[in-house]
Amino acid sequence: MNVQTPAPAPAPIPVAERTADPREARRLIREGAHAGHTAGLAPGYLQGNLVILPAAHALDFFRFCQRNPKPCPLVGVSDTGNPDLFTLGADVDIRTDVPSYNIFRDGVLSGAVADISDLWAADSVAFVIGCSFTFEQALVSEGIRLRHWDEDTTVSMYRTSIQTTPAGPFRGEMVVSMRPMSMRDAIRAAAITARFPHAHGAPVHIGDPAQIGIADVARPDFGDPTRIEEGEVPVFWACGVTPQRTVLEAKLPLVITHTPGHMLVTDIPGHEAGGV
Amino acid sequence: MNVQTPAPAPAPIPVAERTADPREARRLIREGAHAGHTAGLAPGYLQGNLVILPAAHALDFFRFCQRNPKPCPLVGVSDTGNPDLFTLGADVDIRTDVPSYNIFRDGVLSGAVADISDLWAADSVAFVIGCSFTFEQALVSEGIRLRHWDEDTTVSMYRTSIQTTPAGPFRGEMVVSMRPMSMRDAIRAAAITARFPHAHGAPVHIGDPAQIGIADVARPDFGDPTRIEEGEVPVFWACGVTPQRTVLEAKLPLVITHTPGHMLVTDIPGHEAGGV
Repeated sequence: MNVQTPAPAPAPIPVAERTADPREARRLIREGAHAGHTAGLAPGYLQGNLVILPAAHALDFFRFCQRNPKPCPLVGVSDTGNPDLFTLGADVDIRTDVPSYNIFRDGVLSGAVADISDLWAADSVAFVIGCSFTFEQALVSEGIRLRHWDEDTTVSMYRTSIQTTPAGPFRGEMVVSMRPMSMRDAIRAAAITARFPHAHGAPVHIGDPAQIGIADVARPDFGDPTRIEEGEVPVFWACGVTPQRTVLEAKLPLVITHTPGHMLVTDIPGHEAGGV
Repeated sequence: MNVQTPAPAPAPIPVAERTADPREARRLIREGAHAGHTAGLAPGYLQGNLVILPAAHALDFFRFCQRNPKPCPLVGVSDTGNPDLFTLGADVDIRTDVPSYNIFRDGVLSGAVADISDLWAADSVAFVIGCSFTFEQALVSEGIRLRHWDEDTTVSMYRTSIQTTPAGPFRGEMVVSMRPMSMRDAIRAAAITARFPHAHGAPVHIGDPAQIGIADVARPDFGDPTRIEEGEVPVFWACGVTPQRTVLEAKLPLVITHTPGHMLVTDIPGHEAGGV
């Protein structure tokens, strides 16, 4: 399985390495002083998933994201060959500012590295895609409990029967994440996450997993199982694993992504993920 | 002035030519039975501005729209060379389904035609951008009066000091449209239009025109002047003239757009312009 299943529950970041400032976070990462995951770094600022492709495939991948905004909410795209992602913050160098990169050749993981300066090329294009951190922080701050936070596990993720709209070589089923909660909280969560189109937006489904092609909600395809208690419903959101699977299944000669959990920390306040 | 200033107040569409169905509207247009503007056609369905460019410039224009979503809310992008805009409706042929096209060579208007079958090429890419029809309908249905509707004039538009975020050859100032209303309605209008990110979203400014570089609000750069009455404030929204100016000022050898007022009628219900 070459798909980037998010890492198992990450250990907490040592206090000395935590920072509230996204520029400081990226500096520590660039200098090698922070090589771990980015959960809890610069809280309140938008973090993003990374996909780097050659320009020859960039137009199709751009279309794929435009046509599938719930699983693929684009927050930034580099100029061709320019590693400065200036729309996402001050002095963002996409070659060095992510703690760990996964290198895929012909769709197969060939390794993880802390610096891609030798792989970034004149025809490279970097896509940064919003992730669920932003809306999860919003839900928790509105008093909605998230079991995978409480129990320090990785969110449950599933393949579904929902097909994405294809673009060139990019196609396939949507992957979703699931968070159990009361129906009252599910309704509130739908309203809250609808405000964050740059972080997957409103749920794609609430309730019966079979309606979206999930045979057994107790057995996720990626991540850890999540207990659903009496009186709770599963709530499903489009998941950033969707574009990762899509890109890898296109079997391009070289694709670079972030290593799961090791995101790009941007200067964009999370509330701006609403786009207003 | 080569910019696509929207046409002056259009004459009402004869009742016999009106249709509530977007597919029927496109069929009439394709067959030449409807050659006029599209205001009032298939009410409730999203209409879009059109920009057709060669693929060599498509990635940069895609980036320009991603970086400037308020003036350039992308609702659909064709595959390269494929005139079937399948993401926007059933059997949409972008070569024939817009009532009138403007042809620009080196940034200069060279003519308007009803069919671009001879100009569509293997490397053509069509971009469809949401327009203010959608949010204006929403405002009116919420009881907010629009003076340019009441007086059958073209909305006032202005160049501003707000700079767009550039991408390749595409850059320049944002153009805004202005609608006067009471501050109470302005607040309601901000909340209502925030729900329509695919139709320019929330206002970019309310009140003092000088703050966004407008010297004389009584003298718009495009469209007709609009009277501001005692107790009203001007409310400014990002305007679809922005990408048109940007594309023309890049002076590409060939650019095709819709003729102002003559939009693509899509099958997308207007309420889906909210993206939820």
